[in-house]
Amino acid sequence: MSLKNIIVGQSGGPTAVINASLCGVVRESLSRKGDIGKVYGMIHGVEGFLEGRYMDLGEELGSKELDLLRVTPAAYLGSCRYKLPEDMSSEVYPQLFAKLEEMDIGYFFYIGGNDSMDTVSKLSRYGKQNQSRIRFVGIPKTIDNDLVLTDHTPGFGSAARYAASAVREIVLDSSVYQQKSVTIIELMGRHTGWLTAASVLARKYKGDNPALVYLPEHPFSMEGFARDVERELGRRRSVVVCVSEGIADKEGRFICEYGQRDLLSCMGKEALADPGAGGEAGLDQFGHKMLAGCGKVLERFIKENFGVKVRSVELNVGQRCCGMLASLTDVQEAEKAGRAGVDFALKGENGVMVAFSRKGNGEFYELEYSAVDVGKVCNREKKVPKTWILEGGNDVGEEYAEYALPLIQGAVSPPMEDGIPRYLYRKQIFPDGV
Amino acid sequence: MSLKNIIVGQSGGPTAVINASLCGVVRESLSRKGDIGKVYGMIHGVEGFLEGRYMDLGEELGSKELDLLRVTPAAYLGSCRYKLPEDMSSEVYPQLFAKLEEMDIGYFFYIGGNDSMDTVSKLSRYGKQNQSRIRFVGIPKTIDNDLVLTDHTPGFGSAARYAASAVREIVLDSSVYQQKSVTIIELMGRHTGWLTAASVLARKYKGDNPALVYLPEHPFSMEGFARDVERELGRRRSVVVCVSEGIADKEGRFICEYGQRDLLSCMGKEALADPGAGGEAGLDQFGHKMLAGCGKVLERFIKENFGVKVRSVELNVGQRCCGMLASLTDVQEAEKAGRAGVDFALKGENGVMVAFSRKGNGEFYELEYSAVDVGKVCNREKKVPKTWILEGGNDVGEEYAEYALPLIQGAVSPPMEDGIPRYLYRKQIFPDGV
Repeated sequence: MSLKNIIVGQSGGPTAVINASLCGVVRESLSRKGDIGKVYGMIHGVEGFLEGRYMDLGEELGSKELDLLRVTPAAYLGSCRYKLPEDMSSEVYPQLFAKLEEMDIGYFFYIGGNDSMDTVSKLSRYGKQNQSRIRFVGIPKTIDNDLVLTDHTPGFGSAARYAASAVREIVLDSSVYQQKSVTIIELMGRHTGWLTAASVLARKYKGDNPALVYLPEHPFSMEGFARDVERELGRRRSVVVCVSEGIADKEGRFICEYGQRDLLSCMGKEALADPGAGGEAGLDQFGHKMLAGCGKVLERFIKENFGVKVRSVELNVGQRCCGMLASLTDVQEAEKAGRAGVDFALKGENGVMVAFSRKGNGEFYELEYSAVDVGKVCNREKKVPKTWILEGGNDVGEEYAEYALPLIQGAVSPPMEDGIPRYLYRKQIFPDGV
Repeated sequence: MSLKNIIVGQSGGPTAVINASLCGVVRESLSRKGDIGKVYGMIHGVEGFLEGRYMDLGEELGSKELDLLRVTPAAYLGSCRYKLPEDMSSEVYPQLFAKLEEMDIGYFFYIGGNDSMDTVSKLSRYGKQNQSRIRFVGIPKTIDNDLVLTDHTPGFGSAARYAASAVREIVLDSSVYQQKSVTIIELMGRHTGWLTAASVLARKYKGDNPALVYLPEHPFSMEGFARDVERELGRRRSVVVCVSEGIADKEGRFICEYGQRDLLSCMGKEALADPGAGGEAGLDQFGHKMLAGCGKVLERFIKENFGVKVRSVELNVGQRCCGMLASLTDVQEAEKAGRAGVDFALKGENGVMVAFSRKGNGEFYELEYSAVDVGKVCNREKKVPKTWILEGGNDVGEEYAEYALPLIQGAVSPPMEDGIPRYLYRKQIFPDGV
């Protein structure tokens, strides 16, 4: 009997370490020569695979390439945002399984977040219903850290390290002038504040900036914000505020969708003239959804209400794609998660996700890897515990630092070429480029 | 006769290496025990000094602190944007000189850009007219690289390394999906494109992204931009565009000030309804100057004209304050510039700026430090040579890489604490904080 092959895909938004997990899957598979045949990679996840695109990773990646892959951000195999149909009688399923059987796949690994775990869950259920022997395993990945049943998620530590470092540097940058100022830093996180909370790690001493930190887990009010800023401006010259992109008011309306009327009404003013479409909540002058985030809305609000210099900074995609500032701990754990996935699959697990549990913390920090039911992970969301958010919803307690600090330790040094990082690029195997 | 003291200040926008120059001034001064008395630092530049604020750097900074100062971004002493009066009979001059005499200052160093060199020029002229024996020396600093009479400026190399690295990572991040997309990256540079041009260093292979690069030195046209994007979308899946914040049309109007009417008119459409204040060029819904940059304007334009996914990313203050990704070459040169300034002053120079000339390039890259007339530097602006900008104004030629590559070499490793960089903070000597 010939050995079964494996196939691995990447899905959802890129991170600094999703390729470290890919590296882990490939390295572990190649080290199990007696158990595994070929090691394939789907190009652009399930979506590209359905169109027949994949590559032989064992052939493409030698030891040097794997070293480089491990520290290369974004998704080497390409990614997708493809959701499998809820309807299990959809023709997509037999199509996909026919391809897998044709390639003699025995093990299927999918590295991704919530939606990707949904894919693993559906495929494993379909497989079980149809007597397939293919084993499906999810490798967690998301900078949002919002997956349940795992202590944390690969990708988060690097994003948190980037955020904390960048906030510390922006705090220094904001402190140079003697004039009073407010600086608003907008961090990623639509529904959860794990990443935004990392900005508290930027504080060097008690009372250091950022002075105010707002997460989506707590309802945001413009009135409360105005009071907080006023108090802080009385205490210090430079006030730095960190906010999640997804902060919303108690009615659940996103602050980034506040238009002119909302802002004026928060200030107790009426719109003076017909503001045009630009005045409508969430719409810009074209009547289209706003492009700007909540940072700009708050910047405008401060500008209108306080006579101080104000600016907003969106940390943006660097949070998920900056390989130069990745956390070494995160890279190592991401790789081990990939290796553990292969190990679990070979031991017979199917329909599972690799999960982390913490054994000891602080200097005794250590992780254990286990397999949890992927069906219990997908379509759920882990939020920052309410008890970690301080009263008033404008700061985060000590518990957060205890939780997050072990995850941001250690620096990675990608090899350099011409002064900037040398990363691994997929060969130009398709005429339309990478 | 007692030894004369020195005083040093920092002015203008912070950079990753303005403290390395401060470190150079302090180290060189402390090593000249026989020539120099005390080493003072102005707090918040000339503005704070006029209010009586300064510190004794020789007391404050030991060898360990200086090591840390050298890799700390932003301005340790605080900064200002204070312009001395043009009128030399203003009372500010005698006030300032009285303070300097009172402190027995013999040498005055000012680290900054164009405006700071204007300060050095004015003070040295006033001093000469009034038989003062104080010598005034400027140490160049600006991420914009726009000072004349010097090959380049400390601060630029680190900003360029940050920009090139970030663009490379965003290019990877943008390439993961199979759907067509346009990513617009907005870089700093109001009048010159030195920093934006560094995005070409991110290319790994011929034809790699960024596909299009626009500098303020070349008039920008929306029609030309639309043609460029259309052509590139035919060639590749992901199109990355890098633009300077200061791009302007041939009439000199900034693209970031384009309102709805301008955009519609570029598309050959009339505004359908009264757009309110939001439709006016450069004004938002409040009738105030736009907060958003040209990246958002171009994002909107692409969204309206092409049926593809589009997003814009502003690299923002990381370009000037990211110490983690500073260029080692830049840090070394910035420190040497500070040292050279002290040396020139002791040799009798007055009313000069430290300038760089390049002796040999590529692997033979070497710098010579000289003193140039600061009066010929201030209030002028060095632009990217027209001949380096390719026809069509959408890319930069090979000359740029030859020029810029030596400046971004080498990495700095700031010491870490709790996973993020440990930087030097000025002690809380004032009740209102740093």
